[in-house]
Amino acid sequence: MHFSLSALCEHREPKMKLAAFLGCFMLAFAAVGARIQPREPGWTGSLLVVPMDGSHWTGVKAVAEEMGRRGHKVMVVIPEVSVLLGPSKHYTTRTFPVPYGKQQLDELQARNAEVMERKQLPLLEKISTRLSNMRKFVALQRATAESLLLNHELVDFLKKQNFDAVLTSPAVPTGAILAYNLSLPAVYMLRGLPCGLDSTATACPNPPSYIPRFFTNNSDRMSFRQRVLNVLVSIVEPLLCRLIYWSTEGVASRFLQRDVSVAEILRSGALWLLRYDFTLEFPKPLMPNMVLIGGINCAIKNPLSKEVEEFVKGSGEHGIVVFSLGSLVSSMPKKKAAIFFKAFSMIPQRVLWRYTGEIPDNVPENVKLMKWLPQNDLLGNPKAKAFITHGGTHGIYEGICHGVPMVMLPLFGDQDDNVHRVATRGVGVVLSIHDITTETLVDALNTVINDSSYRQRMEKLSAIHNDRPMQPLDLAVYWTEFVMRHKGADHLRPAAHDLNWLQYHSLDVIGFLLFIVLIVTLATFKCCALCWRRCCRKLQKRKRD
Amino acid sequence: MHFSLSALCEHREPKMKLAAFLGCFMLAFAAVGARIQPREPGWTGSLLVVPMDGSHWTGVKAVAEEMGRRGHKVMVVIPEVSVLLGPSKHYTTRTFPVPYGKQQLDELQARNAEVMERKQLPLLEKISTRLSNMRKFVALQRATAESLLLNHELVDFLKKQNFDAVLTSPAVPTGAILAYNLSLPAVYMLRGLPCGLDSTATACPNPPSYIPRFFTNNSDRMSFRQRVLNVLVSIVEPLLCRLIYWSTEGVASRFLQRDVSVAEILRSGALWLLRYDFTLEFPKPLMPNMVLIGGINCAIKNPLSKEVEEFVKGSGEHGIVVFSLGSLVSSMPKKKAAIFFKAFSMIPQRVLWRYTGEIPDNVPENVKLMKWLPQNDLLGNPKAKAFITHGGTHGIYEGICHGVPMVMLPLFGDQDDNVHRVATRGVGVVLSIHDITTETLVDALNTVINDSSYRQRMEKLSAIHNDRPMQPLDLAVYWTEFVMRHKGADHLRPAAHDLNWLQYHSLDVIGFLLFIVLIVTLATFKCCALCWRRCCRKLQKRKRD
Repeated sequence: MHFSLSALCEHREPKMKLAAFLGCFMLAFAAVGARIQPREPGWTGSLLVVPMDGSHWTGVKAVAEEMGRRGHKVMVVIPEVSVLLGPSKHYTTRTFPVPYGKQQLDELQARNAEVMERKQLPLLEKISTRLSNMRKFVALQRATAESLLLNHELVDFLKKQNFDAVLTSPAVPTGAILAYNLSLPAVYMLRGLPCGLDSTATACPNPPSYIPRFFTNNSDRMSFRQRVLNVLVSIVEPLLCRLIYWSTEGVASRFLQRDVSVAEILRSGALWLLRYDFTLEFPKPLMPNMVLIGGINCAIKNPLSKEVEEFVKGSGEHGIVVFSLGSLVSSMPKKKAAIFFKAFSMIPQRVLWRYTGEIPDNVPENVKLMKWLPQNDLLGNPKAKAFITHGGTHGIYEGICHGVPMVMLPLFGDQDDNVHRVATRGVGVVLSIHDITTETLVDALNTVINDSSYRQRMEKLSAIHNDRPMQPLDLAVYWTEFVMRHKGADHLRPAAHDLNWLQYHSLDVIGFLLFIVLIVTLATFKCCALCWRRCCRKLQKRKRD
Repeated sequence: MHFSLSALCEHREPKMKLAAFLGCFMLAFAAVGARIQPREPGWTGSLLVVPMDGSHWTGVKAVAEEMGRRGHKVMVVIPEVSVLLGPSKHYTTRTFPVPYGKQQLDELQARNAEVMERKQLPLLEKISTRLSNMRKFVALQRATAESLLLNHELVDFLKKQNFDAVLTSPAVPTGAILAYNLSLPAVYMLRGLPCGLDSTATACPNPPSYIPRFFTNNSDRMSFRQRVLNVLVSIVEPLLCRLIYWSTEGVASRFLQRDVSVAEILRSGALWLLRYDFTLEFPKPLMPNMVLIGGINCAIKNPLSKEVEEFVKGSGEHGIVVFSLGSLVSSMPKKKAAIFFKAFSMIPQRVLWRYTGEIPDNVPENVKLMKWLPQNDLLGNPKAKAFITHGGTHGIYEGICHGVPMVMLPLFGDQDDNVHRVATRGVGVVLSIHDITTETLVDALNTVINDSSYRQRMEKLSAIHNDRPMQPLDLAVYWTEFVMRHKGADHLRPAAHDLNWLQYHSLDVIGFLLFIVLIVTLATFKCCALCWRRCCRKLQKRKRD
């Protein structure tokens, strides 16, 4: 749209200022404006949700349900087989067939637990296992994307529903590709993209001098060595992006019937709901279409079941420890589990553990194993003294929200970076799942429970996190509704998207200015040289005369 | 603080991750944390307000009054003589003597109206008048700053009040200097600073490739020529800053008894309340401690007086035109005023005009001259058909908020940029106060009133502006309270503040990497050359043998 407009913009009426300014963006605005719906009390619209399986679903589900509660028509498109995705009374679901079964998903999930043993494997085997797991994960995502996007019947059906917007996780950009194809404004919910693609796609400045890159374990205050690493990683990032999204770009290009990059698709997103805030993240620039919703799940509270309530109450003054390694890892190798069981038998607290692995005979009395854990409700209980977590963003924000210090065991993905951020705030202790022993675990638990400085700092961090003008869930719903009402958020879209790399950094202008300076300097020098030579000649001539 | 911490950060315990991460920011956080007050319902604090005279007062006063209404102790420090500053039942005032009188202020204000005649003056006289006015304005600001900061009795008194925070306009940074001296967190309210100092002081990226500089009349989509101008202005900006704040820096250095720059002082600000949003401003990056409160005055509504109400009602289907040139210009040269009177006699609308100049005999019946105009209340009236404004931010946002198309007559300061932004949205017409004629004015009024596209676009712009999760006044009050509760907002402060220019742009790292590449290339080249030479020598030797 901007290209056709730019031609218009150059023909301005110089005669009178009356019409002079009207040319350029008026049409652009009218184009947006013509589709704007007035904001009426009780207005409801229709939302398409294309979620990603796993922990990403938690935040998306919360918004989908709340949108349904507020009377919007919400349709969630999910594969027939999934780990967590499922129906709710607040939205309708539309399933699509996939070429894999529950067993394959379970196998893949079981492999997540293998990460705990990986250090004991020889290096080559470790790398090959990791690559094989990654390949299987990518193949699964590709299969899911193909099953949705190349299902013409489903896509045609969705086209006819006249949705106002699409809510999706762009980490696996199937929903973003679908929104792009249906010409619907997209609302993205994410914590960040692994190769800095979120910065590229939002045109958000991302200086490597104080914004740590993923997987570097850097903070925002870096030594020279750390900054060198950060710059190197930021140089490699575009390549990493190509590798990660290679397969998806293939599917997208087949679906859209033209070559397309994931960056191009994500750039069309209307709004970015970011699952963080600056109690966890290091302060950095934001763009106008970024909305921070860190801690979105914290406000969703349910009462504990009678059995759990009694177990928690029975913990007395010592309180409880909540233990979960996230939605994707619920079991543990027997030997590793034994370390935890032994450590728990040595502390006075009661422990609630999400565990589906083999149960030994000698489970300590103070330990309750559960297949599913009401994590947020347990952390919100005043008896919660510590939280053993893998360091997923949802869990960490639940811990911060309720002010519970943490013992953190990062497994994969962004967890290592998350726990590093928590640790720099002095509200949690990081242990390595590979080297963990009964002693280090007991020490860590005793530290966060009995060293009052941890709880004090956590209470202060929690106070800052919870001191916000609006609940993150309400904010997410508000901005999703905004995008639906106005069919996008074009007034928040920076013009930077229309510039290429050279133009964005003004390198063409700087080159031009340097060229001018060079020309002027050369001309001046030449003139001076000419004058000098003439003077010399005259002097020589006079001398000769 | 960061310098002493950085030394600490380098000594990390490598043995176990338990303590490893705790070193660095824990103390920084504890230092903040120790001062944090819990958020209790009904908690009230005490706020010092150091306002700037003129239109800047409008937004600051709204927050000061609302803070008072919510039970906070609010003290406003104002000079004994001022144009607009004054008491209210919602706050206490503390005045300080100044070495100028009301007459001098009135004279300076009267000179603002002279801008309307300036084009008729010869160039040299025009420049000298402008410089003389600027000098007088700067001298007045300096005198006010000195009268406040060097008034030891007053400063000692303020020190003893134990304020929680300072609210001030940083455009004239007296309040910021005072907050810096009293070690109080400062909340700044502004629309922007003329030489990009707001970007420097917040470490906010400000690429000249798509963020137009003040006074250039550029939009966010620029031609190459416009981008060259924009880059040149951004190169000159630091020099402009030095010139503008030269005098203030002198006062600050005397007061703080050390050399200090205004940038250094402003950098210490906790929160920036920005009087714009992206219905007027072009989308650009923001920092975490920036809060957008464009349109802050719109919600403050009062009923019209009976007399005004009747005049408005009597306008029938044609409605009214609201006309004000802002708080600083209320009169007009006789000849110029005659153009307006004549134009108004030619339109069917009734006109309400803030005018304190000489009143001619033949004032048209449809014109009501008023010494003070309830601008926002009039614009909020459904009869309002057009708004003639000088293009101050407050007025423009009131127009956008109530959806009234504008005829704009920019006079000075940022007004030219503001009206340009409004015009690019196609919701207003710009006229030059110098070249204005009865015909162009009537044409412009008829265009915005009778060309329905103006009202339609304005309604859409207004819908976007008013579609926000929270009223800007509530947001401003919330964040001011936040800063008071937590004695700052250190968790929003980017680490970029601790880097110098070279480090921020990673130029030292890039230089180092280029050096390494150079060394490696040279070494490789040397090795190859050496090998080559040896081979050659051997070959030659063999040949000789």
